[in-house]
Amino acid sequence: MAAQYTLKVLTDFASAHTLRDYPGACARMHGHNWKVEAEVIATRLDDIGMGMDFRDIKQIAREIAGRLDHRYLNELEPFTEVNPTAENIAAWFFREMAAQINGPHRRMHALTLWETERACVRYTED
Amino acid sequence: MAAQYTLKVLTDFASAHTLRDYPGACARMHGHNWKVEAEVIATRLDDIGMGMDFRDIKQIAREIAGRLDHRYLNELEPFTEVNPTAENIAAWFFREMAAQINGPHRRMHALTLWETERACVRYTED
Amino acid sequence: MAAQYTLKVLTDFASAHTLRDYPGACARMHGHNWKVEAEVIATRLDDIGMGMDFRDIKQIAREIAGRLDHRYLNELEPFTEVNPTAENIAAWFFREMAAQINGPHRRMHALTLWETERACVRYTED
Repeated sequence: MAAQYTLKVLTDFASAHTLRDYPGACARMHGHNWKVEAEVIATRLDDIGMGMDFRDIKQIAREIAGRLDHRYLNELEPFTEVNPTAENIAAWFFREMAAQINGPHRRMHALTLWETERACVRYTED
Repeated sequence: MAAQYTLKVLTDFASAHTLRDYPGACARMHGHNWKVEAEVIATRLDDIGMGMDFRDIKQIAREIAGRLDHRYLNELEPFTEVNPTAENIAAWFFREMAAQINGPHRRMHALTLWETERACVRYTED
Repeated sequence: MAAQYTLKVLTDFASAHTLRDYPGACARMHGHNWKVEAEVIATRLDDIGMGMDFRDIKQIAREIAGRLDHRYLNELEPFTEVNPTAENIAAWFFREMAAQINGPHRRMHALTLWETERACVRYTED
């Protein structure tokens, strides 16, 4: 029996984007209130009884969200080259978080990006 | 490292149903505002950078939800025979979507059906 | 192809707690409206077409939540000894539910505890 703790924090950002080569309205510049759900798996608790402090996960997630907030994504690396679809933004956000979070007993598990209240993509790596 | 994109869209329908042989109030005809969460896994992105267009998943989910919406489920196939529990409706909805969605790089992953704001069932197949 | 039904019910409780040895504001007595999401996996449906009656899962979850509701967690077993972090409360809640739910065709799968609307922990066992 292996206990596992998945810590999830929510944050958000508001940005404009344009989908290149998209056959429809999304090819026009528009924007969203993106909602972010970041999930970190911890397999061990520290002496206080925490997998990772929510405060620390939030701080990391908010710093990354802050780089996108109130910006035109197509002007920011890597979205000058990579199309800023929800899929690609989620993958980028995941990797930026993983670089700061992964360690012996914890790792970035999933990054879910809500584009509207009715559509999201959840990015994971095996 | 295998990247995986789980695309989720939400829709809903309002229907009446009766649970046959249920020892309680659910054996009386009643109804719900059912909420549907449909999840599709894509293992590859297309040239635009999408696993599957949210618009297409929504269209499929809404068409299926539309067959149930403002109907008495017990009068519709297969619920004339199969009891229209949340479990059975979710399994049916999953299979109807899978038939339209599954392909080389994507497949229907889960169908969650909320019967109230405090109870849902998530149907998956391995 | 193995079908799987994950039944989820939501409940909540409002309690005070103090995190011992925490270097920050959480070391002061405070409280939360905790939200609970309890997930039960059923691999088979009964004759009525249910994995487990939502009513029964809710009853179990509410009884356990009721033991914590409007209490100071640090005065309740096991939190007189175990620090009442979200991680430890979720693990305890999971085990209390598992003891009443696990059987041949169903088992407790996950217990998610929301401490705020933007932070939760999901406890699972493999």
